[in-house]
Amino acid sequence: MRGVFITLEGPDGSGKSTQAALLADRLQQNGWPVLLTREPGGTAVGLQLRKILLGPDNQLAVMTEVLLMAADRAQHVEEVIGPALENNMIVICDRYVDSSLAYQGFGLLGDISQVKAINEVAIRGLWPDLTILLDVQPAVGLRRHGLHSGRAKGVGLDRIEQRNLDFHQRVRDGYHQLQSMYKERFALIDTTLLEIETVAQRLWEIVVQRLGIEIR
Amino acid sequence: MRGVFITLEGPDGSGKSTQAALLADRLQQNGWPVLLTREPGGTAVGLQLRKILLGPDNQLAVMTEVLLMAADRAQHVEEVIGPALENNMIVICDRYVDSSLAYQGFGLLGDISQVKAINEVAIRGLWPDLTILLDVQPAVGLRRHGLHSGRAKGVGLDRIEQRNLDFHQRVRDGYHQLQSMYKERFALIDTTLLEIETVAQRLWEIVVQRLGIEIR
Repeated sequence: MRGVFITLEGPDGSGKSTQAALLADRLQQNGWPVLLTREPGGTAVGLQLRKILLGPDNQLAVMTEVLLMAADRAQHVEEVIGPALENNMIVICDRYVDSSLAYQGFGLLGDISQVKAINEVAIRGLWPDLTILLDVQPAVGLRRHGLHSGRAKGVGLDRIEQRNLDFHQRVRDGYHQLQSMYKERFALIDTTLLEIETVAQRLWEIVVQRLGIEIR
Repeated sequence: MRGVFITLEGPDGSGKSTQAALLADRLQQNGWPVLLTREPGGTAVGLQLRKILLGPDNQLAVMTEVLLMAADRAQHVEEVIGPALENNMIVICDRYVDSSLAYQGFGLLGDISQVKAINEVAIRGLWPDLTILLDVQPAVGLRRHGLHSGRAKGVGLDRIEQRNLDFHQRVRDGYHQLQSMYKERFALIDTTLLEIETVAQRLWEIVVQRLGIEIR
């Protein structure tokens, strides 16, 4: 007996945070115990790492970025995700191991072998039960992201968002490759032309069906 | 053509920092270009990581500690050690990969395989040319360390120093195992009963002989 582990993945601006919150609400309204969390920065130590990882002025070597993301994840698994699953909760995580494979693996290194090896040590076998890939064309996603993440307050793009469109295209293609590699646990929703409510409804149907959750 | 990479290793209180500085001075007095650095914290990003790693209030999962040390090292290799060696300098580093193998591998996990695999990715083949193991009995080392590291000013032991004597004994035994594994690059000096000046002289002789450095 253990809980259910759902991750939301996708390019910047695909709507992961919004959809994760909507899904958590709906599950809770149906009486399920839910833990909503995110990466990087799902723990106290992770928040310190998130600042280093996303700080626009930090010059991080690629492998430093890979290892810091994995360190954040190891702490998150140990301190938050693992215990919640042992307590039979539904854990919804906004980004997880596939983000490292897509961004640092496919996006930066062009290959996922080292990133995968390091992350397998970090997560100690804790792969998600279901991964929802919220797909979006990078140009659309980045534009959306600019509108919805408080950029109006003068906050700039973070260190990873600042990378060029080619990088973001490699990330998106990488996600598609991950979907083929891990067919069993992946489900894709193309959000490019959809309203938030429509995405939420499709996502809900996937969760209910794939996990056999009984709706009260 | 590239420089020479020397690391100083050993339990806390073995005199690494003191001896690294003395060695750097003596090499410089003999006209050699020297870079003296340390881990964790040999870069701007690394200093932020050092605070997280050694902060006495942080509760780090073992694998988080392993990955953060490796992240610090990857950044250090890329930004500082690699470029200095390419510029034909003698790099002296106070702790490096063997510290992770001894402290996290032998000391915490009882096995070095995962730590070694992660660090091989982090250092990308950049093993030291010479590693001086400054050996000391843990009880003696920790007592020395308490006297010499500003504890009189009320500064407490850091998160790793706080671990019990059994841990520090496993670290010391681990260093001895590393010495057998890597005979070619290791040289050991037992500092337990020696004065600082005597250790410095032995260390100097090892460096001169092992590296075939010509003294001007």
